[in-house]
Amino acid sequence: MADTHQLGDLGVNGMRLRESLEEMAGIGATSGGGVQRLALSDEDRRARDLLVDWLEELELEVTVDAMGNIFGRRAGCEDDLAPVMSGSHLDSQPRGGRFDGALGVLGMLEVMRTLRDHQVETRRPVVIVDWTNEEGSRFSPAMVASGVWAGALDLQWAYDRSDIDGKRLGEELERIGYRGDAPCKNFPVHAYYEYHIEQGPHLEREGKVIGAPQGIVCLQWYDVYLKGEANQVGPTPMEGRHDALCAAAEMILEVEALPRKMGGDLVATVGEIQNQPNSRNIIPGEVHFTVDIRSWEDDLVRRAWGVLERELLALAERRGCPVEIEETWSVGRSSFDPKLVQRVLGTADALDHPNLKMVSGAGHDASYVNQVCPSAMIFVPSIGGRSHVEVEQTRWQDCQAGANVLLHCVLESATEGRASASRSSNSRERDRR
Amino acid sequence: MADTHQLGDLGVNGMRLRESLEEMAGIGATSGGGVQRLALSDEDRRARDLLVDWLEELELEVTVDAMGNIFGRRAGCEDDLAPVMSGSHLDSQPRGGRFDGALGVLGMLEVMRTLRDHQVETRRPVVIVDWTNEEGSRFSPAMVASGVWAGALDLQWAYDRSDIDGKRLGEELERIGYRGDAPCKNFPVHAYYEYHIEQGPHLEREGKVIGAPQGIVCLQWYDVYLKGEANQVGPTPMEGRHDALCAAAEMILEVEALPRKMGGDLVATVGEIQNQPNSRNIIPGEVHFTVDIRSWEDDLVRRAWGVLERELLALAERRGCPVEIEETWSVGRSSFDPKLVQRVLGTADALDHPNLKMVSGAGHDASYVNQVCPSAMIFVPSIGGRSHVEVEQTRWQDCQAGANVLLHCVLESATEGRASASRSSNSRERDRR
Repeated sequence: MADTHQLGDLGVNGMRLRESLEEMAGIGATSGGGVQRLALSDEDRRARDLLVDWLEELELEVTVDAMGNIFGRRAGCEDDLAPVMSGSHLDSQPRGGRFDGALGVLGMLEVMRTLRDHQVETRRPVVIVDWTNEEGSRFSPAMVASGVWAGALDLQWAYDRSDIDGKRLGEELERIGYRGDAPCKNFPVHAYYEYHIEQGPHLEREGKVIGAPQGIVCLQWYDVYLKGEANQVGPTPMEGRHDALCAAAEMILEVEALPRKMGGDLVATVGEIQNQPNSRNIIPGEVHFTVDIRSWEDDLVRRAWGVLERELLALAERRGCPVEIEETWSVGRSSFDPKLVQRVLGTADALDHPNLKMVSGAGHDASYVNQVCPSAMIFVPSIGGRSHVEVEQTRWQDCQAGANVLLHCVLESATEGRASASRSSNSRERDRR
Repeated sequence: MADTHQLGDLGVNGMRLRESLEEMAGIGATSGGGVQRLALSDEDRRARDLLVDWLEELELEVTVDAMGNIFGRRAGCEDDLAPVMSGSHLDSQPRGGRFDGALGVLGMLEVMRTLRDHQVETRRPVVIVDWTNEEGSRFSPAMVASGVWAGALDLQWAYDRSDIDGKRLGEELERIGYRGDAPCKNFPVHAYYEYHIEQGPHLEREGKVIGAPQGIVCLQWYDVYLKGEANQVGPTPMEGRHDALCAAAEMILEVEALPRKMGGDLVATVGEIQNQPNSRNIIPGEVHFTVDIRSWEDDLVRRAWGVLERELLALAERRGCPVEIEETWSVGRSSFDPKLVQRVLGTADALDHPNLKMVSGAGHDASYVNQVCPSAMIFVPSIGGRSHVEVEQTRWQDCQAGANVLLHCVLESATEGRASASRSSNSRERDRR
């Protein structure tokens, strides 16, 4: 076996990939053409069952760990070497799209099928993975299961996360039969690739097919709680009101204005708002809203928050609406492995796919995996930049292009010998037996 | 019996009134010191049962009509004359206050008890009434049962109103045992008084104890539906976004600014907002909010809406967020009977209670009743102008003062002979037998 993988005629079956994506999209299909497959719901269980069937058809060694992460392992010629791994997630947002997550799992499934069809033997073992609860829309936080796997989050803490009905993650995992016997603990991985839709407009705007993010932006989440003075709207004059929703409205516009003020690639969003008592004839007495700030530049985010926080406090003071602000989540930027990022770009070049080095504005399981092994991602365009919505779309030919890039990246990494990982801290290869 | 009632030593028992209000406030009591007694809930049923017990103790003739309105009739010396009626409602807002509605019912109960204690005989019969579902917070619209009684709303339509769980008003009325046999239909009434808390700050600010509204302001309700473009917050740049919540925020501030622009006594409020999908990492794709505009001047409300509507449409256009606006409810101003309004003020004077002629910013069952018979209201101060909240408060001595004004107004009206009603259109007295 050669030390370097040579790009040949080998390619995935785009029609088969499309059929698998469409079959998966039937599970939890919504009337608007999307899917609703919340983590650990019955729809998630059916999606997992289908995936496991497909993995077993390929005679992969299937393992489910204590967080419900599903692994399918294909042996390598030198089977004691650390494997090359790739995958994503099958859970979705409420009324979400058919490609977010599913493309990465089923793209890697197509890679596995292609290896089987062509009886390709790889030096290293190759592993497909489906991570539990990436979205975090039913059980917060997002990416909790790759976080436990990476050792960044605690298993018992993760089990205790509860949904809006008070159901706990651990119990729901048990209920759908996916609380596995294997410990949820990272093992040596030679390289991890995650194939995903871009979820933004850059590739489409630039006319590119493949994106290779150099990393994931840093992210800060805040929760803002405002108090006003509820009262009957009719008899209460305008002067002297303390309307919590009007105060929130000014703050929302300050959040929106922040990126213009700060410059750079900063984005800032209020996605969620709760108003109390939320009755048309009562002046709003309490409002809660969220703030999400992201940038590739950690320092820019810190400075932006400093500016915004001062403005929010001044606004609250001026309106006589006491405010409390909590920092809910803070993640520094995550830089992917430069060698693997370059490999994605080089492979796209070799396959004649116009490509772009970029950053990812969204979090992915690859952030946590990147903490324990060299990682990179492969992006394909989202039509209109839309995602997390039912109309989320990616052209079938782009899905195929991305899967081919994944195939050849996996093969290249799987060909590499011992101790070739690019970062010494991640080169913890050892005999797995 | 004299043609005019003479103010004597007769007065209500303020302690007994307080005890009844406190006993009633125990039904649906909330931790914050308020009550939650939504229309046709089990709490409403218990409140009605208690009232009916009290009415039967007084040996009143109790009638429940097809809308669940409860009437307690005390015979007059000339019992075929049209009665004098007074009351209000026992249902509350969610986490509402202990005085809104209950004061008017139990204030009139105290008047009835005082008449009994002093063996007062009245020329005309006297009726106490508890109107069903005044608040409209469980079943929209508000004041539906006095509306049906007045002939302004259809009974079957009212039965078909449903709450947020899909339960219908008619079925819930049946369930709690208050779908009565009597038809819900107005009968001749000589004069109607409604005793109520002000729900605003005017009396307190002016140092007055009694308010006599010359009428109820006109009111316009609108529902605004905005479409944006939902998307993942991280990968979506600021430019090109169509954030429905940011558009709504600008509109909310326009609504707030409207009264300053228009002058007069206009108030304008956004009390309710729904945001979709309301997830912290998704750009808001749909927002619905309400607009409530009120003024004593019908014309001012019309002009104000014209100005606001143009601004909302321009904002929607500028942000690329299509908007739909529905006029949900429109009520012209309601002028109470000038003679009865003057009687409230004169009675307050005679009892040495500082008083004020004003307007009511809130709707009341008296608006509908005013369509079929001469009506007026008696207001007492709301501490801090607060209402529809758990901290709603009125001083016990003011509760007593208002009940005494009611007592003497009722007595004065009950003394009047045939054909003395002040408006010929409302003078439809006839033999009830």
